[in-house]
Amino acid sequence: MAKISAATPYRILLSRPPTSHLTRRLASASARHSFSTSPRRLQPSNVGNVGLAEKDTIIGDQAPEPLTIEGIKARRAKAGKLVAPTASYSDSDMFKSPQSYDKPKARRWDHLLSQESLSREPCVLKQAAKYLKKPGLISLGGGLPSASNFPIDSLSMRVPTPPHFAEAEVASTGQDVRIGKYDVRDGRNGGVYDLAIALNYGQSVGAAQLLRWVTEHTELVHGPPPYADWRCALTVGSTGALEQALRMLCDRARGDAVLTEEYTFSTALETAAPLGVRVFGVPTDGEGLRADGLDEVLATWDEKERGGARRPRVLYTVPSGQNPTGATQGAQRRRDIYEVCSRHDVFILEDEPYYFLQMQPYGGGGASNVVPPPETPEAFLRSLIPSLLSMDTDGRVLRMDSFSKVVVPGSRLGWITASEQVVERYIRHAEVASQGPSGISQVLLYKLVDEAWGHEGYLRWLMHLRLEYTRRRDAILAACERYLPRDLVSWVPPAAGMFLWLQVDHTQHPQASAKSILEIEDDIFASCIDKGVLAIRGSWFRAEQDVAPSGLFFRTTFAAASEDDMARAIERFGAAVRESFGR
Amino acid sequence: MAKISAATPYRILLSRPPTSHLTRRLASASARHSFSTSPRRLQPSNVGNVGLAEKDTIIGDQAPEPLTIEGIKARRAKAGKLVAPTASYSDSDMFKSPQSYDKPKARRWDHLLSQESLSREPCVLKQAAKYLKKPGLISLGGGLPSASNFPIDSLSMRVPTPPHFAEAEVASTGQDVRIGKYDVRDGRNGGVYDLAIALNYGQSVGAAQLLRWVTEHTELVHGPPPYADWRCALTVGSTGALEQALRMLCDRARGDAVLTEEYTFSTALETAAPLGVRVFGVPTDGEGLRADGLDEVLATWDEKERGGARRPRVLYTVPSGQNPTGATQGAQRRRDIYEVCSRHDVFILEDEPYYFLQMQPYGGGGASNVVPPPETPEAFLRSLIPSLLSMDTDGRVLRMDSFSKVVVPGSRLGWITASEQVVERYIRHAEVASQGPSGISQVLLYKLVDEAWGHEGYLRWLMHLRLEYTRRRDAILAACERYLPRDLVSWVPPAAGMFLWLQVDHTQHPQASAKSILEIEDDIFASCIDKGVLAIRGSWFRAEQDVAPSGLFFRTTFAAASEDDMARAIERFGAAVRESFGR
Repeated sequence: MAKISAATPYRILLSRPPTSHLTRRLASASARHSFSTSPRRLQPSNVGNVGLAEKDTIIGDQAPEPLTIEGIKARRAKAGKLVAPTASYSDSDMFKSPQSYDKPKARRWDHLLSQESLSREPCVLKQAAKYLKKPGLISLGGGLPSASNFPIDSLSMRVPTPPHFAEAEVASTGQDVRIGKYDVRDGRNGGVYDLAIALNYGQSVGAAQLLRWVTEHTELVHGPPPYADWRCALTVGSTGALEQALRMLCDRARGDAVLTEEYTFSTALETAAPLGVRVFGVPTDGEGLRADGLDEVLATWDEKERGGARRPRVLYTVPSGQNPTGATQGAQRRRDIYEVCSRHDVFILEDEPYYFLQMQPYGGGGASNVVPPPETPEAFLRSLIPSLLSMDTDGRVLRMDSFSKVVVPGSRLGWITASEQVVERYIRHAEVASQGPSGISQVLLYKLVDEAWGHEGYLRWLMHLRLEYTRRRDAILAACERYLPRDLVSWVPPAAGMFLWLQVDHTQHPQASAKSILEIEDDIFASCIDKGVLAIRGSWFRAEQDVAPSGLFFRTTFAAASEDDMARAIERFGAAVRESFGR
Repeated sequence: MAKISAATPYRILLSRPPTSHLTRRLASASARHSFSTSPRRLQPSNVGNVGLAEKDTIIGDQAPEPLTIEGIKARRAKAGKLVAPTASYSDSDMFKSPQSYDKPKARRWDHLLSQESLSREPCVLKQAAKYLKKPGLISLGGGLPSASNFPIDSLSMRVPTPPHFAEAEVASTGQDVRIGKYDVRDGRNGGVYDLAIALNYGQSVGAAQLLRWVTEHTELVHGPPPYADWRCALTVGSTGALEQALRMLCDRARGDAVLTEEYTFSTALETAAPLGVRVFGVPTDGEGLRADGLDEVLATWDEKERGGARRPRVLYTVPSGQNPTGATQGAQRRRDIYEVCSRHDVFILEDEPYYFLQMQPYGGGGASNVVPPPETPEAFLRSLIPSLLSMDTDGRVLRMDSFSKVVVPGSRLGWITASEQVVERYIRHAEVASQGPSGISQVLLYKLVDEAWGHEGYLRWLMHLRLEYTRRRDAILAACERYLPRDLVSWVPPAAGMFLWLQVDHTQHPQASAKSILEIEDDIFASCIDKGVLAIRGSWFRAEQDVAPSGLFFRTTFAAASEDDMARAIERFGAAVRESFGR
């Protein structure tokens, strides 16, 4: 199997033995910047303040193994069976490809860390764990209950067998996955991860078994990131990860502030506000956050004008299928945003729950037949827009992934990827907060995505979801084209995610001069409820609630309702708008 | 079935129709204070500043149903089948017994809430949820994935059938509990809680199905608490609950501090420190936290002497089987502590992971044959020491319960019980942090403790655990009596929990005048490792790390190792102490 993603070009280059000094320099430059989408074309660096001298590393003549699913299998085979008993320590370095180590390390972020984060000390009880390796030692140390007192003897779940993912097929073609209490001891059901481990206490970074899968998956999809000391850690989902990240990087006492899209995820605003972290909006367009707008906001920041808020050092962004606008940043947009952040030394929180809900290009008329869907996992990965993580030469990105939108939200399970320093601080906090995700969730997800499906099966599941969401999006767009007054309501067909953002041209409202946008929004919302459709008011998502809205919007989702219901709902929405506008 | 707990006596009184003015007054006084252990003897109130005028409520002549398992069953039957679809809102008021409402409401704690907690606004997106009740409404609102895209079709688990709880019995007498994706729609497997609900997003307070069980269980065990507006909320475990509670009640900017046992759970210290919350120790004895010590610390508080820390308004305590000392506060001790807190207006964080690991009284010689073990759930509940929650007339207790020690830690699941105001602030925080516990953990625990076992089965499981831990404790105590030098090492047989706290008489050390306690502790610890036993250094648990230790201690646990291993380990510990003391 060949290399499976072109998202970050250095992998192509690294996977071929450099044969000349020039090739080596190219490989090295690429590893630093990796701003090219095409494996063959290397763009000139437009990064302002990357420390070349510090980061210039000559790649050796040894070609690393290419990053492929087969390569991961080979690496696992070489490493032998994973031995990770109850509460064992692990980190991504144990599972990463050798390629990572040829790169420079991430920058340090001490100047960003909050007082709270800086003062975290490692868990004192964990200091004792190092003695557990001593042969014959009996521990009267940790207060871990004995597995013999766990009243769950075994679990089993029925899941689809790739590529038969359709819900109706599971009964006939599905597989039963079993997990016993002592599978490791007894060498049953894979013998790597069992209930005696999963139901006991674990490390906050996550169980080694699932951390291995997450680390490998991250490399397959993104690169690995173009610096050496990246790591993953499991999370209780991206909501919790964002709160921890804000507490790590922002400090109320410093007057810290965060930038984000002009319309942003309202829960993110509700997370930041009680921490005393002010949030400011950046202008957006059909591709989401504008890099030039970001540059201008940062270049012209005036603390007095901004009510005493310090120039933001943190950007929170949802690059794919942004909530609420549904906008997706293209590859060049992401490069430009990264460049601006690098120039202004801004740390990036890349929240990507919808990354794998990138859909087929929309062709109009409710159809997506512009290009054929990807047929192989390799083609699927090539179809994905490169992540900010994959461009992150500095280690200034903390990426948040989640199983919520692509497997099940009820797992409360996701992961972050960032530099060792950032991940270490994150884990220190998790140890005294969530203690990491549920072990029950972890073992079920591990059994599903690793043992039952493997990397290839999981990518095929994502390909299945891609078409599911394409179909749903096409259905809502067809309904919009049919039922909405095009002179009043406009939208950009979303390229990813769950949301369609409908703009209503308030300037045409008969009472436009007398009523505010918020008042017209209120009228339409009430009329929608009256007619039997719930769409979310756009004003609820304004980053700066005290600034007048720039337009009149409603957020709709195509994730939940059936296609028939969506059509009915959009028809009702159209009627509500017409009624409000007296048409 | 009769009334099943004497922990709070007013239930007895309330369950009998008051026949005279005197009886009514007794009932009322008891409901206010409930300081008596015996249902027949009402102690004079020793509470200082309870606002009698405000709280004096005359109980009506209608006798409420007694709080029994049968009563809960009757209430459920009357209420009909629980209908709680995806992400539905619920609170304990839906599931409480009518008795609660006859009591006065809890006090308000606005003066304690931190700036962070006070500034939390309700989740704006949840405002939209109220419209979902409108018949025929189609929601394009919440971004909840469709259950049709969940790749888990069913789960099943094998669990013991009460009273056959022994691990070896599960294979033959256990039961298989099944959970399908559409059980509610299809009326299968109980038809109350299925994967379509559990695997989707839920409310941070927890799923209604499990919240109902937790609320009922809390009433069965504790009372209910002696004020009207108590509520429960699920948590991701008590570690996370403690962090949220500290962020709610303490404010770095105010110089807030917390009191706790002189030796306390080290993770609690590591939780508080980064928040800028200083922790101060209260003297303890064989029954744990001393009420007179607490009173003295509070009465003589001097901000200057305490490095600028404000007189603490929060007490963090582990009343049963305290970590690390294993000490358990008796009933009178708890009453005294509550009285002191009430007098000094101190809020109590009652952390009770080991409450149900109360054991049989130790009889010496490795045996616990002083009294026979409880034979019925009613007798079991009567055997438990009353909780601070059950005495909480003011609503000044936030109690933390956890499934970690009594079911499985890997569930990351527990609950809090407190006043409506405190629980509401807690949930507002959880919504932007963990979002509540894993839905997978919730549905498995619900199926286990509600559908498979029910309240009675669960109490019988706890009775089984009581004897398991009694056996383990007796084994380590027998080893101590056999192998430890009694003139050098002393201990109090623990009445609850997982820990045995061994005090070594450092004054007899040959180098007592030359070496500090910490140095001798270090010697013994190193010698223990050398001889093959890990015991945890007592100094790690000091509430005030900058204060010299008051004695030389080691924490050992009897929860994890086998009985043979425990004996070997204690023998090695004894050898290490003798070696250090040159005996």
